[in-house]
Amino acid sequence: MTAEVVGWDVGGANVKAVLVDRDVPIRVVERAFPLWREPERLPAILSEIADSLGGATPAMAVTMTAELADCFATKRQGVAFVLDAFEDAFPNRQICVYGVDGQFRSVDAARGQPLEVAAANWHAGATVAARTWRDALFVDVGSTTTDIVPIVDGRVAVRGTTDPARLGSGELVYTGAVRTPVSAVVRRVPLRGRRCRVASELFAVTGDVYRWLDKIAPADYTCDTPDGRGRTRMEAAARLARMVCADLEMLTADDVSSIAEHVARTQVAQIAGGMKQVMRRLGTGSPDIAVVAGRGAFLARAAATKVGLEVDDLADALGCAARMAPAAAVAQLLAERVAVGA
Amino acid sequence: MTAEVVGWDVGGANVKAVLVDRDVPIRVVERAFPLWREPERLPAILSEIADSLGGATPAMAVTMTAELADCFATKRQGVAFVLDAFEDAFPNRQICVYGVDGQFRSVDAARGQPLEVAAANWHAGATVAARTWRDALFVDVGSTTTDIVPIVDGRVAVRGTTDPARLGSGELVYTGAVRTPVSAVVRRVPLRGRRCRVASELFAVTGDVYRWLDKIAPADYTCDTPDGRGRTRMEAAARLARMVCADLEMLTADDVSSIAEHVARTQVAQIAGGMKQVMRRLGTGSPDIAVVAGRGAFLARAAATKVGLEVDDLADALGCAARMAPAAAVAQLLAERVAVGA
Repeated sequence: MTAEVVGWDVGGANVKAVLVDRDVPIRVVERAFPLWREPERLPAILSEIADSLGGATPAMAVTMTAELADCFATKRQGVAFVLDAFEDAFPNRQICVYGVDGQFRSVDAARGQPLEVAAANWHAGATVAARTWRDALFVDVGSTTTDIVPIVDGRVAVRGTTDPARLGSGELVYTGAVRTPVSAVVRRVPLRGRRCRVASELFAVTGDVYRWLDKIAPADYTCDTPDGRGRTRMEAAARLARMVCADLEMLTADDVSSIAEHVARTQVAQIAGGMKQVMRRLGTGSPDIAVVAGRGAFLARAAATKVGLEVDDLADALGCAARMAPAAAVAQLLAERVAVGA
Repeated sequence: MTAEVVGWDVGGANVKAVLVDRDVPIRVVERAFPLWREPERLPAILSEIADSLGGATPAMAVTMTAELADCFATKRQGVAFVLDAFEDAFPNRQICVYGVDGQFRSVDAARGQPLEVAAANWHAGATVAARTWRDALFVDVGSTTTDIVPIVDGRVAVRGTTDPARLGSGELVYTGAVRTPVSAVVRRVPLRGRRCRVASELFAVTGDVYRWLDKIAPADYTCDTPDGRGRTRMEAAARLARMVCADLEMLTADDVSSIAEHVARTQVAQIAGGMKQVMRRLGTGSPDIAVVAGRGAFLARAAATKVGLEVDDLADALGCAARMAPAAAVAQLLAERVAVGA
């Protein structure tokens, strides 16, 4: 008898799923899905992903951040919608919902506890990391957000559990390696010896910055491009040029590099700022090591180095599933309970 | 014989048009039109607006910023597209295109000078203001951008004429009273005694801030709302709550006010920052008075007061057309030349 589980991390812009057999990730799927555009398609998307993962009637371990999407008036409504989608997609399957208390609950129980199961994904990744690293800052930089979770004495030791509390404590920095608008990172960029304001428009995202700087591949650029054009470095450069209301007839490659490098430096500093805030709170008990994860692990590494921490990589423990740590982690955590119960 | 002219200011998100008879604005139209979504509709939109304005086969005075829209690869392409749309819409009409040199040219000439006619709208408004105020900072806060144009000795006395140069000099601050994403204005907001980071998402715009603070009416909120819901104060509040990843089940009205007031203060400071940069450059010759205009004139007024300037209102000279100063101004400037030529 196997203990197969699919772990789900349902975001507002991406759905990630990992099939595990006990604690071994077997297959991973990430699919861009801007939920707010056509939420009614969610059950079909879930089914398609589950089919592509295969597995012998696996149980479903669910975590989400999609409840924040602005097609929902409240988190309560968003949580209920996502849970309905799972029940629609998998009527005869065991569905277990992870919460910020580290426990799984049934769909019915989860529906009544929206603030317990909303945006609990960071807790799962950190819980799994805590088995290997008893004292560490877990820093997971995704496409959209950065989770900074202190692990002290083998336990998740956060200050807040809701998104607003975590945005205040430095444990959530709403910045990522792909989807973040450049205008949400910087107010000005250096251009030919001057500081130039940027356009407050969705002309370019951090995916363009890191495509131009060759830090990510076209396949890592998982969201739509702002202008609907492609993901080549030159197409990314044209979008970056538009941030200063220019085009590639007006700017050189050096000008574009000057813009991109400044955005990257600023973003690393913002992540480092969250880390420093968390470290200040922990005081003398603050860990010496950062465990980095996510599509933007390269940013987590740079920020950790900036604040003077040693760096380990979650990929050493999780393999390629470290890019989707929460999905892999909820799957492993549920698989263990199934195994214990069997 | 009349000297009727329609002045056009074609932006990427709005088209504004003013019919004047010599220097008297007769009718004004503003229409939200997100050009980048369906650029092919521009000629039809222009025709509909012209029909609604009426007038006896008026000449067309054109200025634009729409060339920056990201459906165009370059400004050259964008300028050509807008000019084609005017020729399509008004095949037998005189079409005169305003440039940053203060001169009108034919469509054919304009096509060959994209950097002369791109984003020249600020120049027209300031030129008309300069007749009434010989020394002033002209501060036009629109839905999307803020133009800060020094008038010295009755002449427009700018440092740069292209958008990137003006973003560097402080003469263009890419922030406005309606369309600006809140995440492009602030990184953090005060919330219950703490500083809370904001979500880098298009969850709320400045239109929501000023609806909540009762500074603008629903009709002034001329763009689509980020979540597709309505323009009531409570709907605006829900969008502002989402900026800290919360909802109206989690926040009070005081919490929302604390967020909105901070965004407003920060935006006024950013406009004031552009003004101070321009005033520093002008040195002892810097004007003592600001002439405010645009849908966000209330922001221009607050910023001018902050930097210690007296405030006059362009509406005293232009009437309601002061909300669309560039369109009214190109119309007046062309009407005068027609009259002189007649």
